[in-house]
Amino acid sequence: MRGVVMYAPGDVRVEDRPEPAVLEPTDAVIRLSATCICGSDLWPYRGDDEIHRPSPMGHEYAGIVEEVGSAVSGVKPGEFVVGSFFASDNSCEICREGYQTSCIHRVGIGSEGAQAQRMRVPLADGTLVATPDVPTEDLVPDFLAASDVLGTGWFAAVAAETGPGKTVVVVGDGAVGLLGVLAAKELGAERIIAMSRHEPRQQLALEFGATDIVTERGDAGVQHIKDLTSGLGAHSVIEAVGTQESMMQAIRSTRPGGHVGYVGVTHGVALPGQELFFSHVHLHGGPAPVRRFLPDLMERIWNRSIRPGKVFDLDLSLEEAAAGYRAMDSRQAIKVLLRP
Amino acid sequence: MRGVVMYAPGDVRVEDRPEPAVLEPTDAVIRLSATCICGSDLWPYRGDDEIHRPSPMGHEYAGIVEEVGSAVSGVKPGEFVVGSFFASDNSCEICREGYQTSCIHRVGIGSEGAQAQRMRVPLADGTLVATPDVPTEDLVPDFLAASDVLGTGWFAAVAAETGPGKTVVVVGDGAVGLLGVLAAKELGAERIIAMSRHEPRQQLALEFGATDIVTERGDAGVQHIKDLTSGLGAHSVIEAVGTQESMMQAIRSTRPGGHVGYVGVTHGVALPGQELFFSHVHLHGGPAPVRRFLPDLMERIWNRSIRPGKVFDLDLSLEEAAAGYRAMDSRQAIKVLLRP
Repeated sequence: MRGVVMYAPGDVRVEDRPEPAVLEPTDAVIRLSATCICGSDLWPYRGDDEIHRPSPMGHEYAGIVEEVGSAVSGVKPGEFVVGSFFASDNSCEICREGYQTSCIHRVGIGSEGAQAQRMRVPLADGTLVATPDVPTEDLVPDFLAASDVLGTGWFAAVAAETGPGKTVVVVGDGAVGLLGVLAAKELGAERIIAMSRHEPRQQLALEFGATDIVTERGDAGVQHIKDLTSGLGAHSVIEAVGTQESMMQAIRSTRPGGHVGYVGVTHGVALPGQELFFSHVHLHGGPAPVRRFLPDLMERIWNRSIRPGKVFDLDLSLEEAAAGYRAMDSRQAIKVLLRP
Repeated sequence: MRGVVMYAPGDVRVEDRPEPAVLEPTDAVIRLSATCICGSDLWPYRGDDEIHRPSPMGHEYAGIVEEVGSAVSGVKPGEFVVGSFFASDNSCEICREGYQTSCIHRVGIGSEGAQAQRMRVPLADGTLVATPDVPTEDLVPDFLAASDVLGTGWFAAVAAETGPGKTVVVVGDGAVGLLGVLAAKELGAERIIAMSRHEPRQQLALEFGATDIVTERGDAGVQHIKDLTSGLGAHSVIEAVGTQESMMQAIRSTRPGGHVGYVGVTHGVALPGQELFFSHVHLHGGPAPVRRFLPDLMERIWNRSIRPGKVFDLDLSLEEAAAGYRAMDSRQAIKVLLRP
């Protein structure tokens, strides 16, 4: 089968890879209806994460079950399923508390390589969620978004304790940040301030429910947020970038007693203890336990009450993956969908 | 009147200071029934915080109202009152959300100097809470503890989401950590693990409700906590020290999805973003909004259902303050009560 492999920063190839197979009785093999490129794939692409060997890429997936191992009872061949970027048993104590990405048996999906025609999914019963029926083609991008960026933006909004009466700030206008806006809207936030300097992303933020756009960054951005919130800062701040600047922008935009939900994979961040102490904010985040939210999110998509697939603004064939990486790296595309 | 002044690290004197007076219509002047030395007073005493000029010391107080300004209606002369180390209006939006130590009109009590015979309390209506009647002498240490260390330990326990069914770890065996144990017990925790190497403090921890004592620190301490919690870590961890080692010990002792409540005033702490990200913990803390808890805590003390004053294991006259600082600095005393 064909799949994407990264050899070095900037060097992404589509090549023949071994056919995936059921290796463990708890595995499933799925045929991908669609896959995509993640903002976090840009860290190694840009040389910010090391690449030790040619690496299969991709961890976002939605597709049709082709085969299941003997111990799998929750999904069956022919069903349309979505899973998260960590396989989880969904039954251990940590999973039951809603932190499936820290499942004691978790398996990273990244090494399987979801940017491909087919893939193996470990711990299929705990990982995959099926739709009531195979969805129509137009819903496939929405379900694919649920695999990571929607679930991640949703977790950030929950971690930031978004809700009715709250003023929410979203730092980061990538797909996760934009879907954090959508999540904040769905969770009933009163006011949603998106921080973005890019006109197409601002438009999508407004479409998803943003009430205000702030274009400044850093100290000027924080000052603008204070100006919009009686000098106090927001109740809830979603951080969806992961740099020192964006983390500090998020913390400083939050009022005392407010909540920061951070989901940008942190790179080179060191939080100053004393400033954090006196900020009085709540801080929570990490790799989003998307599995916690999948049943709810997939029902909202099935009912067409949310359309998170709008974040895909470039639709390519799998063979064109290298062009997709270039488009995301240059910020010409928000998020690239790949059709195997 | 007599009051404590710090001139330089290790140089604490009791000397004549100006009589406090009502300066603003919202002020009260109180006569202290008792005051005390705080663990945080040791930072400048040890040279870890700079001392720019001779500084009146003390921010913990309980006593009798002597005089109130024309705008004060909530307390009156003759009443026994307790306040926190930040004066607050208790009516602004931040106070109403329970963060009185970040009140938009807050005034630090430290500059008034509570280690004295009398003191001015700004924003008296928002700051002071009166007892139903003047308490008997034996309850004075308990009420004094409510002014800071009890309220701070309580906030840490609340920030760590202590409650029924939870396993709680307490890092730090000073007065705040020990009262964090008491708070965890009162809030219904199932298991309370106190980390302490000092026998008298271990005894008090057990008396306050600790179920386990862990004597190791750092990595060995974390490993012991993991061993006691099926390898997962605790649900709730109270951090009551404020150093890099104690913060990391707290974070690493917490299970994914668990909560760290940190109240040790952070000194030289930088939290590694990536480790925090993948830890999946909730982090909340800062200067405890003691005022939020005072009515509840003072009622528990009035009813003698808690006796937090047990943390005072050395009872001196105000004139002996220098000896009190030496005893706390050398860890010969947990907490020193001073009688003006």
